[in-house]
Amino acid sequence: MSQQELSEKDLIDKARKPEQVAVKLHSFYHGKMQTMLKSQVRDFDDFANYYNPGVAGPCRIIQADADRVYELTNIWNTVAIVSDCTRVLGLGNIGPKAGYPVMEGKALLFKYLGGVDGVPICLNTTNATEIIQAVGWLQHSFGGINLEDIASPKCFYILSRLREELTVPVWHDDQQGTAIVMLAGLLNSLKIVGKSIKKVRICLNGSGAANIGTANLLIAYGIEPGHIVVVDSKGILHPGREDLEEQKREFPDKWHLCQITNEGGIKGHLTEALKDADVLISCSRPGPGVIAAQDIKLMANDAICFTSANPVPEIWPWEVLDAGVRIVGTGRSDFPNQLNNSMAFPGIFRGVFDVGARAITDEMCVAAAEGLARYAEEHGLSEKHIVPTMQESEALIHEAVAVGMKAQELGIARIKISRDDLYKKSKSIIVASRGMHDVLVSSGYIAPAPE
Amino acid sequence: MSQQELSEKDLIDKARKPEQVAVKLHSFYHGKMQTMLKSQVRDFDDFANYYNPGVAGPCRIIQADADRVYELTNIWNTVAIVSDCTRVLGLGNIGPKAGYPVMEGKALLFKYLGGVDGVPICLNTTNATEIIQAVGWLQHSFGGINLEDIASPKCFYILSRLREELTVPVWHDDQQGTAIVMLAGLLNSLKIVGKSIKKVRICLNGSGAANIGTANLLIAYGIEPGHIVVVDSKGILHPGREDLEEQKREFPDKWHLCQITNEGGIKGHLTEALKDADVLISCSRPGPGVIAAQDIKLMANDAICFTSANPVPEIWPWEVLDAGVRIVGTGRSDFPNQLNNSMAFPGIFRGVFDVGARAITDEMCVAAAEGLARYAEEHGLSEKHIVPTMQESEALIHEAVAVGMKAQELGIARIKISRDDLYKKSKSIIVASRGMHDVLVSSGYIAPAPE
Repeated sequence: MSQQELSEKDLIDKARKPEQVAVKLHSFYHGKMQTMLKSQVRDFDDFANYYNPGVAGPCRIIQADADRVYELTNIWNTVAIVSDCTRVLGLGNIGPKAGYPVMEGKALLFKYLGGVDGVPICLNTTNATEIIQAVGWLQHSFGGINLEDIASPKCFYILSRLREELTVPVWHDDQQGTAIVMLAGLLNSLKIVGKSIKKVRICLNGSGAANIGTANLLIAYGIEPGHIVVVDSKGILHPGREDLEEQKREFPDKWHLCQITNEGGIKGHLTEALKDADVLISCSRPGPGVIAAQDIKLMANDAICFTSANPVPEIWPWEVLDAGVRIVGTGRSDFPNQLNNSMAFPGIFRGVFDVGARAITDEMCVAAAEGLARYAEEHGLSEKHIVPTMQESEALIHEAVAVGMKAQELGIARIKISRDDLYKKSKSIIVASRGMHDVLVSSGYIAPAPE
Repeated sequence: MSQQELSEKDLIDKARKPEQVAVKLHSFYHGKMQTMLKSQVRDFDDFANYYNPGVAGPCRIIQADADRVYELTNIWNTVAIVSDCTRVLGLGNIGPKAGYPVMEGKALLFKYLGGVDGVPICLNTTNATEIIQAVGWLQHSFGGINLEDIASPKCFYILSRLREELTVPVWHDDQQGTAIVMLAGLLNSLKIVGKSIKKVRICLNGSGAANIGTANLLIAYGIEPGHIVVVDSKGILHPGREDLEEQKREFPDKWHLCQITNEGGIKGHLTEALKDADVLISCSRPGPGVIAAQDIKLMANDAICFTSANPVPEIWPWEVLDAGVRIVGTGRSDFPNQLNNSMAFPGIFRGVFDVGARAITDEMCVAAAEGLARYAEEHGLSEKHIVPTMQESEALIHEAVAVGMKAQELGIARIKISRDDLYKKSKSIIVASRGMHDVLVSSGYIAPAPE
C-alpha cells in the first residue's frame, strides 16, 4: 500500500489539508448552492402563469386532491436537510450557523450525485420535542426529511417519533446511511472470504448513531442478534450492564441491544470482544492508536475490519493488515474500500422520489445495500474493492432502482414504474444534474475554482 | 383604451385564462424551481473540500466568528418565503400543500427578477404563536424572512413580533411590498397632477394587510394621518367605531388608525369618504361593480384612483376615467399602470442582501418607493406611466441601490459599499440570474414551454 511510504505525520497532515482548501473555496464562492428555475420564462407575461393570477389554477387542483402537489410542484424532488447541529462532524455541538456549511455541502452532494434538491435547515433549538415539532410544521413543504448530525441518544427518539408521525419519508443519515454502506461492504467481504453471514461473529465498536443504526440494519437483514457483540466506552454490552439499565429510558435502543446481542454473555472490553470475531465494525473516535494491533491479532482467520472514524481511522489500515486481517475498509478516500455514506443517501432519495415512496423502510435500506453490493460485485470484487468507489457513482443509479422497486413491492409507492423505466428516469435526472453544473461552468456562470 | 373594445365578459374570461395556461405549465415541468450548485466540482476529490472532512474548516471559522457565515455560505442571499397559507390569492385558507405553488412562484420571481435564492416554507400550523416560534427556529438558516399570504389581523402581530425578536430582516410582502408600489405610484401621480402630498386627501378602501401596510407607510413617509380616511366593510374608521374598540386587542393597528386618521371626523361609507378626495387607494375585493362610478364622480378634480383588487379591479378603469378621474392604476398587466408588488420585493431583498442589512426599516421602504418613482420619472412620466412596468425591470436594480444606500446611511449594513459599486454588484447578480436561466434553456436542460 503506497500510503505506507508516507509517514504517519504526513497522513495526519493530509487529513487536515482539505480544511485549508475548503476555506479557500468557501470564501471564493460565498456559498455552494443556490436556487434555479426549472421552467422556462418565455417573457414577462409568463409571470401571470407561474404566479398571480394563474397559479390559482394549480392551487385549486391541489386543494381538491392533495396528492397532486407532487405533480404540480417541485416538492416531489425536495428534501429538507434538518439538523440541530449538536454533533457536527468531529466538532460536536457547534450551533446552527457554524453547522450550516455541512448541510449546504450535503445539499451539494444530494444534487450532484443524486439530482435531488436539498434545502439546509439548521434549527435554532436542540430540544428533541421542539425538533419534532419544527419538522412537523415543515413537513408539507418537502418530499422527504433527511435528519443530520443530531446528537445521540435523542437522534433515535426523534427518528422513530417522526417516522411514526409524518406522512413523508424520514431518514437519519448518520444511522441509516452509514448502516447501508457497512452492510454492503460486509456482504461483499463475506463473499471474498467465503464465510456465511449466518455464522460470522461481528463486533461493533462504538455505540453512537452509526453503530446503533448498523446493528439495527444487520438485524433487520437477518443476522442473528446473538452473533453481534457491541462495545461502548465502558465495555461490552450485556444484560448485566447496570449503568445502561439505569439509563434505559434515555438510551432504549442501547438497552435493547444489551438484551438481544452477545449470546455468549461475553464481558470485558474490546480485547475480549475481538477474540475470534470474524468482523469488526468500528465507528468510535479518530485515531490513530485508538485500537491496538495486539487486539486485532485476536480475531479469527480471514477477518474483516471496517475502521471508520474520520478523519483518521482508529488504527492505520496497514497495521490492521499486518495483524493478519484480510479486508480493511475506512472512511478515507485515500485508502482502498472507502465506506462513505455519500454512496447511500443520494441513491436512496433518488429511488424514493422517483417512485413517490411514502416512507423509507428497513427493507428499502437492505435493498439499497444489496444494490450497492451487486454493483461492486459486477465490477470486480477484490480485497481492495468491496464497495463502489465515488468514481463509480453510476452505482447510485442502481441503488435508486433497487430502492424504488422495493418500495413498489411493499405497496408504499405512489408511482408504478417498470425497472427499465425507473432506471432511465433516475439516470436521466442524475445525468442532467451534472450536465447543468457543467454547462454553468463552461458558460462562466460558475467561475473556475481557485487553485 | 383598447381594452374597452373587449367586452366585460372577455375581460373576465381573460382574467381566468392564465389559470388554464398555468395548469398546463405546472403539470409539464413538475415544479418551477430547483437547487443548483454555485461552485465548481472539479472532480470527486472536491467533495472532501465541500463536505467531510474539509468543510470542518469553514465550520470552525464561523464557530469563532458567527458573522462569517455570510461570507462562507449562501445564507447571505437566501430568503425563506414563509406562509401559513391562510390567505392565498383570492382563495383564502387553502392549507400548506395547496398554497405551495404560490410560494414556489414567489421563489421564481425572486430569482429571475432579483437574483435572490428563495425557499418556500408552507407551515403546517395557522397559530400565530406557533408561526413565530417556527420562524424563530428557522432564522439562522436564512439571510431574511419574507412573510406571505398570512391572514389579517394576525399578520400584523406576527410581523411586529418577528421584527423585534429576530436578528435577520423580516418582511411581510402583502403589507410592505404593496405599500411601496402604492407610494411610488402616488408620488409620481402627484407630480403629474401638480398637487402637494402635504395637502391631498387620501381615501383607503379596504383594511386588510395591503391597505393597513399602505397607511402605515404613507404616514412613515410624512403624510399627515388626519388627511387619510380608511374605509372597511362596515364603513369609515373614526374614534367612535365601537365595533373596532371592542376588537382593539385583536386589531390594534386598525384601532390606532381610528385614532389618528380622518381629522374631519367623517362618518358613513365609501360614498362619504370619496367626497372631495384627491386619491383613492382600494385593495378590497374583486370586481367589477364593487365601487360605483357615481361615487368616483364625487372625488376632487384631477383625482387619482388605484383600484387594485385581483384578478378584476373593483371597477373597470374606463369607468373610472369616464367618471372624470385623471390617473388610474390596477393590479393587471393588461391595463396601464400595473401596481404590482413584483416591482418591490426582488429589489428590496437584492439591496438588503448586497449590503448585508440587519433589518428592513420603514425608511428603507420609503427609499425603495422613491427609487422606483425616480426610475419611472426618468423614463417619462405620463398618466399611463406612473410606475415602472415589468418590461422595465431594470428599475429593480435602482430600487436595490436606493435600499442598500439607505441601510448604510442608517448604520444597519454589515457591508460598506459605494453607490457605483453597489449598482454594479446588484446588476451583475440579476443579469447572471437571468443568464443562467437562458443558458439552461438554450442547452436543453430546461425544456421549451408547451404551447
